[in-house]
Amino acid sequence: MSLFSKHQDTVEQAIKALHQRTFYSGFPEFPSPKIYGESADSDGRSWFQGAMGKKFEELMQSDPTAWVGEEESPYMQEPLNIQYPQCETDTLISRAVHAFSGWRKVSPEERAGVLIESLERIKDRFFEIAYATMHTTGQGFMMAFQASGPHAADRALEAIASGLEEQQRFPRKAHWEKPMGKYQIDMEKEWRVVPKGIGLVIGCSTFPTWNSVPGIYASLVTGNPVIVKPHPGAILPIAIFVAEIRKVLQEVGQDPNACQLAVDTFAMQRTLELAEHPQVKLIDFTGNSEFGSYLEKLPGKAVFTEKTGVNSVILDSVQDIDKVAQNLAFSVSLYSGQMCTAPQNIFIARSGIKMEEKTISITQFAEKFIGAINGLVDNPKAGPFVLGAVQNKKTCARIAEAEKLPGKLWLSSRSVENPMFKNARTATPVVLQVNPEQRELYSKELFGPIALLIETEDVDESIALAREQAERSGAISCGAYTVNEEIKEKIADQMALAGTPVSFNLVSGVYVNQHAGFSDFHVTGGNPAGNASFTNPEFVVKRFIMVGMREQVA
Amino acid sequence: MSLFSKHQDTVEQAIKALHQRTFYSGFPEFPSPKIYGESADSDGRSWFQGAMGKKFEELMQSDPTAWVGEEESPYMQEPLNIQYPQCETDTLISRAVHAFSGWRKVSPEERAGVLIESLERIKDRFFEIAYATMHTTGQGFMMAFQASGPHAADRALEAIASGLEEQQRFPRKAHWEKPMGKYQIDMEKEWRVVPKGIGLVIGCSTFPTWNSVPGIYASLVTGNPVIVKPHPGAILPIAIFVAEIRKVLQEVGQDPNACQLAVDTFAMQRTLELAEHPQVKLIDFTGNSEFGSYLEKLPGKAVFTEKTGVNSVILDSVQDIDKVAQNLAFSVSLYSGQMCTAPQNIFIARSGIKMEEKTISITQFAEKFIGAINGLVDNPKAGPFVLGAVQNKKTCARIAEAEKLPGKLWLSSRSVENPMFKNARTATPVVLQVNPEQRELYSKELFGPIALLIETEDVDESIALAREQAERSGAISCGAYTVNEEIKEKIADQMALAGTPVSFNLVSGVYVNQHAGFSDFHVTGGNPAGNASFTNPEFVVKRFIMVGMREQVA
Repeated sequence: MSLFSKHQDTVEQAIKALHQRTFYSGFPEFPSPKIYGESADSDGRSWFQGAMGKKFEELMQSDPTAWVGEEESPYMQEPLNIQYPQCETDTLISRAVHAFSGWRKVSPEERAGVLIESLERIKDRFFEIAYATMHTTGQGFMMAFQASGPHAADRALEAIASGLEEQQRFPRKAHWEKPMGKYQIDMEKEWRVVPKGIGLVIGCSTFPTWNSVPGIYASLVTGNPVIVKPHPGAILPIAIFVAEIRKVLQEVGQDPNACQLAVDTFAMQRTLELAEHPQVKLIDFTGNSEFGSYLEKLPGKAVFTEKTGVNSVILDSVQDIDKVAQNLAFSVSLYSGQMCTAPQNIFIARSGIKMEEKTISITQFAEKFIGAINGLVDNPKAGPFVLGAVQNKKTCARIAEAEKLPGKLWLSSRSVENPMFKNARTATPVVLQVNPEQRELYSKELFGPIALLIETEDVDESIALAREQAERSGAISCGAYTVNEEIKEKIADQMALAGTPVSFNLVSGVYVNQHAGFSDFHVTGGNPAGNASFTNPEFVVKRFIMVGMREQVA
Repeated sequence: MSLFSKHQDTVEQAIKALHQRTFYSGFPEFPSPKIYGESADSDGRSWFQGAMGKKFEELMQSDPTAWVGEEESPYMQEPLNIQYPQCETDTLISRAVHAFSGWRKVSPEERAGVLIESLERIKDRFFEIAYATMHTTGQGFMMAFQASGPHAADRALEAIASGLEEQQRFPRKAHWEKPMGKYQIDMEKEWRVVPKGIGLVIGCSTFPTWNSVPGIYASLVTGNPVIVKPHPGAILPIAIFVAEIRKVLQEVGQDPNACQLAVDTFAMQRTLELAEHPQVKLIDFTGNSEFGSYLEKLPGKAVFTEKTGVNSVILDSVQDIDKVAQNLAFSVSLYSGQMCTAPQNIFIARSGIKMEEKTISITQFAEKFIGAINGLVDNPKAGPFVLGAVQNKKTCARIAEAEKLPGKLWLSSRSVENPMFKNARTATPVVLQVNPEQRELYSKELFGPIALLIETEDVDESIALAREQAERSGAISCGAYTVNEEIKEKIADQMALAGTPVSFNLVSGVYVNQHAGFSDFHVTGGNPAGNASFTNPEFVVKRFIMVGMREQVA
């Protein structure tokens, strides 16, 4: 049985889900023993512990010139000492070119089947991936499991589904008859889906699988070979994906080099060399704005970026200010503010936040907000797990600098103790109040758990500033609280123009940070935070061309 | 009745046709009096004669700073003396920004209705457009009628259909319920189609409507205002389109400045100023490679280009060499080789062209080919009308230079007399034989009626050179003649990789130059001849973003 036949139902359901945009998940998000097996958690932990200090042999990438790896656990603040095979750029490229000749000739359907099979195999390794993610990114276990496991696999499935659908939208053959009065012209026509060439996927240190798999699977399903260049600080989670993809490729008789891992070190990064290579035609990038904007300008390549942004919250009117404060406290604390969707600038009008007959001043809100943050981070059953650990030491330095910024410091950052990892690098949120005039402070991304309260003239100014920030510096999310329909429409309209999705009135169990596969488009492509969107048709159609062949019939 | 209701059947049929890719035409291509009316031709000619020497007032673009116009008829070699209103770039931009605020809020369906209504009005002016096209581009009457009238309108309808379909692919609203074990999270979600901003459409001198209307209608249907910057040598045909679009906009209460004409003069071209304006977010360009490649690199804009290419013909084996020679003679003569799809390099293996038991040497083919060309151009009932006139004097200079190139000159160019226009600037094809080593000669576009015969080692070298030319210099068409299925597949596969559509074995009534709306994708985006394709989904989806709004339900 072909792998497409095996997974046809899955991909067809996924295509349907893409167009319904209601809740859909191909992979259960809770690490429940009932679903994943009683020993899955302990097996995953043991596997990770066993992987440390060793070569990662699973990739079977032959003849490496070196074995390198510099990952460190933000929980242990110790190197993992895992080494990965390193090959020269020219070797990777020539292997990809060779693999391309076979992979491009596999039908889109069979490619989808092969890729879904890889996700099924990866599902059995979600716990391994979770521990690998924790100890590279600093995410708490639950987020590491969900974001790098089922949620990433859902995003991958979404890319496969979209990729297959876009390749199926036009007939592969058609008979063309043109009436010419007394005679007619007959042509047999055929259209070929032609992949663009080698894809390069450049990963980031905080979401090494979630942000990378859409590009990997979108390029592969459209027939392009892929070279995956992870961040040197977060290799292991995506290395497991790559290893599983390679194994399935080999099993079906394809060259596994259709998917290769390209590791590098902090001192000798090779991203530029790979990106500028003339054979690389597709680039998926998650990372800083400066480099991302450089990549976007490379001629003759289709480049998909997610860069940085400055996310806003607009507080106008609420039903229950305590629930709002708690919801936002969670959003800024979750993974210590290291999510691209975490809010940074919270705009409140001088007249305060309306709640029925009352109004809550910015001072009153600040008190509730810091109370909610402290309540969360000091709760030993929640705080350490919601905060996780800080991936990069530089983030701690940025937090320290933020506290010295001119403004009213409402809450200082501090460490919390993680009951399982005494050495964990932790940081609770900083809350600072600044003026709307201090644009230079709040117009840039302050990556990490840093929240700014900004008192504006009125809600119109709040909206105008949120829009301005999104248009100038990019934005990936926006939170808004209002019970006024007219203001709601104005926020939606203005932020839509700034290419920023808005979450209204979130109070319980759901946060502005979360973008669900098959429903929320992640990044819109409409502001400087990125030019691509998971997963809209543009994310896929730029990876191949349609070339028509036609022949006159006698 | 809304214009969408009025034209709903039309657009739905057009969407269906997009996906069938069999023969489809919304506008009859023959200028038959039975279809277009007994007096349509003479009315159109009179209208054009009356337009000469006057201001073109129909645009109703207010407060022009000047009236300019430098068009010349290649048939009369005299200025048309038609003046068009010129406005400052900042005026055009601020008017477009104003119009955007209304047009973006019209539903995609109603936008499609308004635009199809404009095409219906334009249909009544096909003869006017035909004469306007003849006397700016030099096309023969039949081509001028078809290419600028019904075929352009079909390409416009195709863009409207594709644009509407892409905007309808996802639901505008959905209810999202996430099961969380003991409770669930409910959200109301909504997605907005957000147009990117002002579109600029830069026209060319040879196909002023056919090459421009896809971009104009694709931008408009997706909610973007459009500024149309025609080539200073070919304004009138597209000015009629713009005028009709503006009239319909005004009738439905929209700001007509959603579609404006930006004219300039040869000495003071303003394309760069418009293209680089930060408010311009979309650019559609037809023209030379150097400027097109510059535009493609402008940051923060979606740029759609059709540039230049070098088209090949591969002659391997045939059923009837005389029919092949006649077919190719027509292709190189049609509109004096001024089509982007006209063949230039004709590759023939040293062993000759196989025809059943015989082989035809390159010399024998050259004799048949020049015989067929002379037969066509010297036929007074066909030659002058197929050749048309030469748009630009520089093309005549290029023809003269081509004759001096090192190689065997098989056929010199000459003028033919046009029975209706004694002053017509005409030129018959040059045929030159060069060696495969003379890459510098045949690797660039020799725009005009210039055909090169190139003798190769074997058919594999012919294919390799055709692919190499397409990959390096771009190609928009490829003709191939072979009765061998293996060679046919090799040509199709190799040219597909080079992003070049192939027409096989065309012998009668159909030519490699012709790309039919709703069936042939024009340009693939896969080689340097252009990055866009009429009309694939990419041509549309890059013109808008999807922005999600969501609200938690209590």
